[in-house]
Order: sequence, then structure tokens, then C-alpha cells
Amino acid sequence: MKIFIKEIMTVLPDQKETFVVRECNVYIEDDTIRAVIECDQKKLYRAPFSDKTADKVIDGKNKLLMPGLINAHTHIYMNFMRGLGDDLSFDNWLFKTIYPMEEKMTPEDAYWGTCLGLLEMIESGTTGFIDMNICMEPSCKAITEAGLRGIVSRGLVGEGPDDEGGIRRIKETMEARENYLDNELIEVCMGPHAPYSCSEKMQKYIADLAMEYNMKVNMHLSESRKEVADCKKKYKATPIALAERAGLFNNRTIAAHCVHLSAEDLDILAENHVTVASNPVSNMKLGNGLAAVPTMLKKGINVALGTDGAASNNTLNMFHELSIMTLIHKGATEDATCISAKEGLFMMTTAGAKAMGKEYEIGSVETGKKADLIILNTNTASFIPRNNYITSLAYSCNGSEVETVIVNGKILMENREVLVLDKEKIFYEVEKTMNRMIGK
Amino acid sequence: MKIFIKEIMTVLPDQKETFVVRECNVYIEDDTIRAVIECDQKKLYRAPFSDKTADKVIDGKNKLLMPGLINAHTHIYMNFMRGLGDDLSFDNWLFKTIYPMEEKMTPEDAYWGTCLGLLEMIESGTTGFIDMNICMEPSCKAITEAGLRGIVSRGLVGEGPDDEGGIRRIKETMEARENYLDNELIEVCMGPHAPYSCSEKMQKYIADLAMEYNMKVNMHLSESRKEVADCKKKYKATPIALAERAGLFNNRTIAAHCVHLSAEDLDILAENHVTVASNPVSNMKLGNGLAAVPTMLKKGINVALGTDGAASNNTLNMFHELSIMTLIHKGATEDATCISAKEGLFMMTTAGAKAMGKEYEIGSVETGKKADLIILNTNTASFIPRNNYITSLAYSCNGSEVETVIVNGKILMENREVLVLDKEKIFYEVEKTMNRMIGK
Repeated sequence: MKIFIKEIMTVLPDQKETFVVRECNVYIEDDTIRAVIECDQKKLYRAPFSDKTADKVIDGKNKLLMPGLINAHTHIYMNFMRGLGDDLSFDNWLFKTIYPMEEKMTPEDAYWGTCLGLLEMIESGTTGFIDMNICMEPSCKAITEAGLRGIVSRGLVGEGPDDEGGIRRIKETMEARENYLDNELIEVCMGPHAPYSCSEKMQKYIADLAMEYNMKVNMHLSESRKEVADCKKKYKATPIALAERAGLFNNRTIAAHCVHLSAEDLDILAENHVTVASNPVSNMKLGNGLAAVPTMLKKGINVALGTDGAASNNTLNMFHELSIMTLIHKGATEDATCISAKEGLFMMTTAGAKAMGKEYEIGSVETGKKADLIILNTNTASFIPRNNYITSLAYSCNGSEVETVIVNGKILMENREVLVLDKEKIFYEVEKTMNRMIGK
Repeated sequence: MKIFIKEIMTVLPDQKETFVVRECNVYIEDDTIRAVIECDQKKLYRAPFSDKTADKVIDGKNKLLMPGLINAHTHIYMNFMRGLGDDLSFDNWLFKTIYPMEEKMTPEDAYWGTCLGLLEMIESGTTGFIDMNICMEPSCKAITEAGLRGIVSRGLVGEGPDDEGGIRRIKETMEARENYLDNELIEVCMGPHAPYSCSEKMQKYIADLAMEYNMKVNMHLSESRKEVADCKKKYKATPIALAERAGLFNNRTIAAHCVHLSAEDLDILAENHVTVASNPVSNMKLGNGLAAVPTMLKKGINVALGTDGAASNNTLNMFHELSIMTLIHKGATEDATCISAKEGLFMMTTAGAKAMGKEYEIGSVETGKKADLIILNTNTASFIPRNNYITSLAYSCNGSEVETVIVNGKILMENREVLVLDKEKIFYEVEKTMNRMIGK
């Protein structure tokens, strides 16, 4: 399909890992951005097709085109647990609320929870993500139906290669890998859960497999002070040092959270080109604290942005996350210049694409890249006056401005109508699930 | 007009300064809530009118009724400056960006900026506010047209009663007081700007007038470390101690910000029943830091929530503010239980009403109170599954769920259509103003 987006203000990458906004004509053919032509340079370039030969023309008046957002850490299925265990400490939340609920969860529950999360992502402009789930097949089924681009991992816990449950979960990972090897949109990676749930032996075993099969690694690291203290006690190493020792940083790795890091931890992450997926809302909501994102950026670490699951956020809306991420670091350091709206936007687009290992395919509006794009309505109180599109994205948008979402050239939402999922059915099934679980 | 809101989930006050959610029938007659009858107790109470005798029936299916939100500190006219001076330090922002812009501002600019702010407030469920402006008449004109409930103050700066400019601004205050004395919705109060702009002599003069005319006081206090240091140097007192010494706490006072307080300051605020209007987003965005809200609450201080102006936020959306306020304190204290969604909701409803001196008139859904109410659509990804309405309001709503806004019994927005303001005209005029100001 040929889509021509006509005369639209467009967020373009510029030289310094940042952005400019220019009026452009944008041409999409099948899954690819064929051309991005700035309107004031139109005469210099030949358009690949016109409004007459396009299958679809989108009028760019009062709109903003930008790369789709990338949620670098989430647990999409958890959306059905939104609103459970709020205002609890991390341990009461995880061990007394979430784990018991997950034990009652069927694959069908996971499917509908994932559908709800995907719906929320599409409605707020997310086109790509890195997910950790506990039910591989229903998750992948929902993702395929919705048409988002994702890296998915089965949370891996266990004592080591002799641990039957642990091996079963790895088997689920490898089967999904096999099943989705030819899938354009889904990539399966290894998901060692965390140092408190996945032993050093198990981490090593997973690292070897990841190397053998060239799989990325997605892991929770240094989320809470307790995790770090327990890990040091048990292994004489920080969670970061332990993961490195186990070989988990030998392939491309995404380390979620990284709230409590030593200077050595920062060096290890930088040297190993590990992406940090920062989840500020979840980290604050569970009382875990604030990650030192400005310091990581100074170290040259690739920092992407994630929402974590809806049970600890409670939304997958990346605009919410962006605004909070930029604000809290200004607040905590008492330095308004320590992080900018542009840096935040970079984290949830280009850095997210890098986290996914797809920085040459997605994450910016450029000729030749895949068409993972979103269009926002700027004729809204959150943009007016249109002084500064980039800071409006960070500080006044709430996600409801997103009107159209395109992934791999396919329109998933148009004028706020989600075309790929049945909203009413999802809402019905998710509430039914929840009522059953809480015995209502 | 008689409005019957039928079978709607309703946020009701309960015994412990908190909330419960119950299905209710709610009856509004003219400006007042005539009856709130829980559906499962319907047989015990006689309804004041029925769906046949009401002028308007609103179906409560998939909706949530709650008190309108109260923004306890803002500068509504500043909305036309949204996006200017982002990512700058407090001093560079105020003295090098905002003040020069304000010098170019005409009364008409202030009018359209205020209209934009009021539109944004209505669209995100705010029904009441405490405002400080620099152009009294156009501000009050816009507020009257929009129909929100506000306490307005002219920012007062100056050296003392001999300062011509200072006296002119006080005169503007007293004239507006006179003009709006019989206005149901607008109350004029004294607005001494801040200790760095309003001398002790001037503060005393204002305090005496406030006492004589029984006017509330609205002042910025202890916003930045520099303000506190400079004040101590000049006056040998903290901004709070100075304001008390000047007599500004003798009437009902709203102290905005209060980011940097000593233990003595906290005692002074508590003893004088001063309301603190906390503005977490603005405080973080300008690098001023985090106010110790959980400590204030423990001290029994009435803490309300404000957005500050759109030039330092950049939105007047109270849902954004609520979520951030609750999250940052959990993050900063590393204690997820230090503040709850309910406490946050209390701050932006009941505590806000108390800040306005109207706790017996507004701030909760109760028989006899004024009908300042909002209705949200809960059939949205941000509420589903409807496990916990209160935490959804705090942690997953973004304000776009607000469908209907009623102030003083009058419907200002219905099904997201703002009935009282001309959106396109406002957008056009605000962008024209901004383009003129920045010489575009």
C-alpha cells in the first residue's frame, strides 16, 4: 500500500542525536518510508508518487508526524492486574499480591491481559516494545493480531540446569523462538528474571544458550536496595557484576531498572554496551527510588525508557513516562538543565530502537526505515501555542493527541479508532477475568 | 435547571478524610446538589424529582461522578507562554524569559491566554482554582465567561506604600474586589508576590488591608533555595517567618510552593492554619526541588495541589499533577506507603476547597453542596479492569476521560464538547499573540 502524508510538521533526526521539526511530505510504500521531503525543498526532489497515485492520502494540516514510541521494558499481560496492590511496598506488592494472582492465571487470561495492554499502547502511540511475560504463546498470539513490533521474552527463574521448572521455561522460550523465526515483527529473546529469582548457575546456562542461538537478553537488574544487598551477600557481587560474570552481557542486553548502581556497575554497563531500560514511574511507585539517568547519559550508556507492567505503573502510556522521567531528574538534582525534553524524546524513540537492536530499521522518520510512525493532532490545548513541539511532547501532551498509528506500513489506529483489536470484547473479557480472580 | 444523574458510580467522602465509591442517583437543582442517594438504599429515601420531571437526565452507565478538581495555585494567563523557556534554570526562566515577555503583554493578550488556560482546565476536569495574574480585568472577564469558580489575585510587588507601581497594583486589586463583590463565582484576594519582589514594608501594608477588608492572601513562599538564602540575609528571617512577622498569616492564607522549609517554618504554617499549595511539576521542572508533602501532612497542614502556570509545567491538567505528586514522594522517600492515591485525591478536591475557604460549599459530592462536579468515562483502557477507581484516577487516568463538567449547576462541557468557550477562536488568537511577541 502507498500512503502519502501531505504537508505535515515532522520530527526529524538532526546531527547531534537530537531533533528538528520541519514541514514535510512523507511517502510510505508497503512497510517502508520511501521518501521524506521537506516542503521548502520540494523542487529539489522528485516524489516517488503523488496524491493521485497513492492508495491513501493523509492531510497533515494541524498534525505532527513522529517516530512511533518504543517501550523498552514492560510486562504487557499484567494489564489485567491494573489497580491491584497499589500503594504497597515492593515486597508486599510482588510476593503477596502479584505472584499469588499469577498463580491463578490461565493462558486465556494472559491473552486478554496482553490484548488490553496492546490496545493501551496503540492508543498512546507506542509501536514497539521489549516484553517479559510468563505465558509465551498467548502473548505472541495477541501481539501478532495487534501488529505491533516486539521483542518478547519468557521470564526465566530457577536454580540451574537441573531445575525442572527452570528448564521448562527455557524450552518455552526456544519453542517460541523457532515458531517466530520468520515473523517480521516478533523476535524472541532470553529473559533471565532477576538475580533473586534466577541463580548464577542458571544465568550462566542462559548466557551460553543466548550466545549459541544469537539471542538478546532482557533482565531486571538492581531494582531495589534489598536485591542489591542480598545479591552481594549471596554472590559477593552486585547484580550487574554477577550478570557480567555469568556472561549475560556478551550479547546485546537490556538491563531493566538499574536504580541502585555503584561506580563500577556504571563502568560495566558502559563497557559492555548494555542498554538500560529506565522505568521511573514503577521505580517510584514501588518505593525503589530514582535511577541516576543523567549520570548514565554522561557515561555514554544507551538509556531507553520503559513503563514496566500496568500493575506497577499503572499505565503503558509513554507520554506519561516521558514527562515524569524528565521532571524527576530536574527535581532530584535541583538542576533544570540536567536533562532536556529532546533527550527524553531520544530515549523513547532512537535509544529504544537501539535497545531492540533495530536502530537501522526504526526509531526515526528517515527514508529507507520501516514505517513505524505516529500522527498527533496539534490543534489541542496541549500544543497551543505551537512554540515548541518537542517540549510540548514532553511536558503537556498526555497521549490522547495521538490519532493515527502505523507499524510496518500498516495502519493500526486511524483518527483514534483502533482497527486491529476489538475494544469492547477485550474490556468485557478482562473484567470477567479479574472478577473471577478476586472472587467477585 | 434540574439535572438527574442516574445510576452512576460516585466518589463519596467517608469518615476518615478519604473516599468510597458507590453507585448513586444524584439530583441537582439550580446551583445545588439536592440529593445523593446510594442505589442500594433507594427504597429508604424519596427522590426530589424523577427522570420524567428533570430537565436533563444523564445516564451513569460506564461513568464515574466525582467532585470537580481544584487547582490551588496557577497563573492562568501564562498559558500563551507555554513552551517558552523550557529546560532553563529558575532564574534564567523568570528573569530572562518570562518577565521580558510579560512586559510586551497587552490586556487583550492576557484575556486570550486566560481563555486558553480555562479551556484546558475544563477539558481536564478542573472546576475551581486560585489564580495570581498581572492583568486583573481581562482575567476576571474570561473567568466569568467560562463560568469556573475562582479566587483571583493581582500579583503585588513593590517596596512599600510610597511605591507608586506597588500602590497602583493594590488599587487594581481593590477595584476588582469592588466589581466582583456580588459575583457568585469570583472572589478577589490579596496577592503579595514573593519575598524577593514584595518588601517587608509592603507585606505589612498588604496584611493590614487584607485584615481590614477580610480578604484571603495568596503568596509564593520558599520556592527556591536562593529565595530562602537571600531572604535570611536581607531580613534575618525565612520567607515563612517574614510573612508571619508581616501579619500575612492573620487571615486565611495560601502559601504556594513551600519547597525549602525549616522545622520552625512547618510549625508556623501549622499553627497559623496556612494552606500549602504544592506544585510538584513546576518545582521539579525549574530545578527547585521537592516539597516535603508527606511531612506536612503528618503535621496536619492542609496541603492542596496546584499546577502553577503553563510556562513552568506546561499543562494545567490536574490528573498529571496528581500522579506525579504521589509518585515522586514515594520515589524520594523510598517508601511506597508514604502517600496514597486517596490522599492525593483529597488534596485536589477537599483540601483545595478548604484552600479556597469553601470547604462547606464545594470539594465533595454531598447533599447541600454546590454542584461543582465532573463525570468521567470509565469504559477506557485507563480504567479497565475497574478494580480500583481511586487509584486509577491517580495512576492511569490522563484527564481525557473527563466527559462532562458542571460548575454551580451549569454544564460547561458535555461529552467533551466545551459549551462556554470558542476553542478555534482562542487557538487562533493565542497563536497570533505569540507570533507577534516572538517576532515571527
